[in-house]
Amino acid sequence: MDMGVVDFLFQLGIILISTKLLGILMRKLGLPQVLGFIIAGILIGPAIWELMFDVDGLMFPISENPYLKAFAEVGVIFVMFTAGLETNLNDIKNTGKMSFVIALSGVLLPLAAGTGLGALFLPEKGFFSWLFIGVIMTATSVGITVEVLRELGKLQTKVGTIIMSAAIIDDVLGIIILSVALSLAGTSGNTSPVLSAINPNNLPVVSVLWILAFFVFAIGAGIGISKLFKAIEKTTPHTRRIPIFSIAVCLLYAFIAEKVFGVADITGAFIAGVVLSTNHASAKYVDRKVTISSYVLFAPIFFASIGIKISFSDMSLDVLWFALAFVVVAILMKIIGCGGLSKAFGFSFKDSMRIGVGMIARGEVALIVTEKGIPLLIDAKYRAIVVLLVLVSSLLAPILLKLLYKNEKDTLPLAQHPELGEAHLE
Amino acid sequence: MDMGVVDFLFQLGIILISTKLLGILMRKLGLPQVLGFIIAGILIGPAIWELMFDVDGLMFPISENPYLKAFAEVGVIFVMFTAGLETNLNDIKNTGKMSFVIALSGVLLPLAAGTGLGALFLPEKGFFSWLFIGVIMTATSVGITVEVLRELGKLQTKVGTIIMSAAIIDDVLGIIILSVALSLAGTSGNTSPVLSAINPNNLPVVSVLWILAFFVFAIGAGIGISKLFKAIEKTTPHTRRIPIFSIAVCLLYAFIAEKVFGVADITGAFIAGVVLSTNHASAKYVDRKVTISSYVLFAPIFFASIGIKISFSDMSLDVLWFALAFVVVAILMKIIGCGGLSKAFGFSFKDSMRIGVGMIARGEVALIVTEKGIPLLIDAKYRAIVVLLVLVSSLLAPILLKLLYKNEKDTLPLAQHPELGEAHLE
Repeated sequence: MDMGVVDFLFQLGIILISTKLLGILMRKLGLPQVLGFIIAGILIGPAIWELMFDVDGLMFPISENPYLKAFAEVGVIFVMFTAGLETNLNDIKNTGKMSFVIALSGVLLPLAAGTGLGALFLPEKGFFSWLFIGVIMTATSVGITVEVLRELGKLQTKVGTIIMSAAIIDDVLGIIILSVALSLAGTSGNTSPVLSAINPNNLPVVSVLWILAFFVFAIGAGIGISKLFKAIEKTTPHTRRIPIFSIAVCLLYAFIAEKVFGVADITGAFIAGVVLSTNHASAKYVDRKVTISSYVLFAPIFFASIGIKISFSDMSLDVLWFALAFVVVAILMKIIGCGGLSKAFGFSFKDSMRIGVGMIARGEVALIVTEKGIPLLIDAKYRAIVVLLVLVSSLLAPILLKLLYKNEKDTLPLAQHPELGEAHLE
Repeated sequence: MDMGVVDFLFQLGIILISTKLLGILMRKLGLPQVLGFIIAGILIGPAIWELMFDVDGLMFPISENPYLKAFAEVGVIFVMFTAGLETNLNDIKNTGKMSFVIALSGVLLPLAAGTGLGALFLPEKGFFSWLFIGVIMTATSVGITVEVLRELGKLQTKVGTIIMSAAIIDDVLGIIILSVALSLAGTSGNTSPVLSAINPNNLPVVSVLWILAFFVFAIGAGIGISKLFKAIEKTTPHTRRIPIFSIAVCLLYAFIAEKVFGVADITGAFIAGVVLSTNHASAKYVDRKVTISSYVLFAPIFFASIGIKISFSDMSLDVLWFALAFVVVAILMKIIGCGGLSKAFGFSFKDSMRIGVGMIARGEVALIVTEKGIPLLIDAKYRAIVVLLVLVSSLLAPILLKLLYKNEKDTLPLAQHPELGEAHLE
């Protein structure tokens, strides 16, 4: 009943109405709903309001609201968790090597190009600052792409699996490069106090081994949890226990990933979904339950919050040219890096473009990397360029994907997924 | 990915597991699940941990966590909203006068007894401090009772309707008495800047009229919203739009109630549910969708948060005797006040006891009233007595209600409510 919380209820109400209305509008225009969610966030957030009226969003300060942050975080966790639940592990096994090479190419190209761009535009800065511009460009934020592919019914296709696998590997590579770059520059980039304790000198090799240890832990614990769930499922089938315990496992995986192993929490949530997806008896049931909660409330809030976080007030003209070059390079290097390699692996031009475009979106990881680098390596005013990259790539990815999938029939039977089927029918 | 948010993911995971496990345990013991949720909150919150190890809850500071607060607030809003959706307006109309008299008696008796208790134990304080002890005792927190009645399948009985109606009226009376008491003592108790603006001198009559204006507004706006929803329902039946817009209406009603009219946000959410329940075509569908989100995630979090907020560290021996008397009087006066009047209205002894016991629970309203009074009228150390009242009454209400409904068959067909039916079967 604290006033801040009551204001938050208003914000939630406005977010739900505006995301739904703009989601419907996007569908009418033949665009993905998720794009409407982001645009709704831009409309109610500070981006326009602070320029026009010098206020932070529609009626109440919203961009730094801790309550909204919690809902948005749970939202992205749920999006990644359900994506994990819908993953076919055999597909990842089959595409693993290919995805790794595609992800590696999609990381190294932006890294090199970004470093060059830094040297070109910011010659007065040193090598580590240039390198950091490259590091910011590396991390794909797959949440939007996952959502678009899901809406299009393409998440469980080969292209969808390649994108998902490559994004996970990309995330791991990004973490490794960030920790290596920051340890070379003499600071720690990881967010895990455990890793800081066992690796006080930031030796890159220890960080990398520790990240790999997460996957060993996740799979090991997952086998035990799957057995436990199967036993519960046997004694009390289809009660609400399994979905609730599954959500708890997802949340704990997310926490342990980031806090113990220094891996992004969204990666932890995705891996939790993959681990639980092997329990075929309950995976679909859990997925349906989580999907309802997620899609009614959390996913719109997460995607709106991306729009809400966007602000142009730091943007000045001298930054603008650099910003434009930065955005163009960041997007092109992912398309060339991932799409080019896909073509080399024998994918059609259209499928290669889909994979490349599916990897262009940057999000919270890029913003967090920026925050880590600002005190040490780059100016605070360059925050705006990363915001612009997030905005443009978040808007471009769904539009381009939609275009690339135009005139293709939905390959997934809708009846298999009644909740999502319903969304399609709206 | 902020560390605070990541810690919150851990807390959420622990809350979900512990509430579910203790909920199952309570069911095995023949007690309501909701009691297990509260006990889970006590176990993971500071109550025990700070006494034993001087830490605030299990592993992370939890009791003042803003993220948890947001989820808990949405939780209680959803509990009240679904209660409103399940309300039969005709029943309230039929029981309105009776409920009003029962609520009035259940407000005046604790008010008088609390004032007397203040005079007895705190003679050095003045009349307004004594009165304030009484004011704290008045507000019933009906969330727990609603949940227990729902679990027992008794929410839509005559006793259930009387309790719901009386609790709403009780809330309104409590707000009126609080604003009158505080305005007599020379300060403003309402949380609405609008009311403060139109009533700068805190005239009680203006406050009361303004509270009544909320109900006029709520019903007027509700008629328009219902018409709009019926039109949407006609063009696109059973899509996810209606539940989402309904949740948004609930959130906005909660906000407007508290921010504009100075009425508790939970009252606003309940009224939103009542208004939308008149749209019979979609009310059940909306109820089911909200109930899934609510019962998987939000309701356990809200009830756990009550347990988590409890702390005994302020409790000293000289406060203890007063505290015991305060708790006993507060509980007995509700039972006598509401139960006695029910008996006078011709209810059986058992039904009268059910109504009386259904009104004993105190919650966040009592705590907020206390916070308002502490700077002006009472010592901060008396905060602990209100916490004790919340604890004892929150635990006692479900246990006593369960006992009073023992050996009675469930009168609601489970099939009518598949999600709740499922909970019953667990």
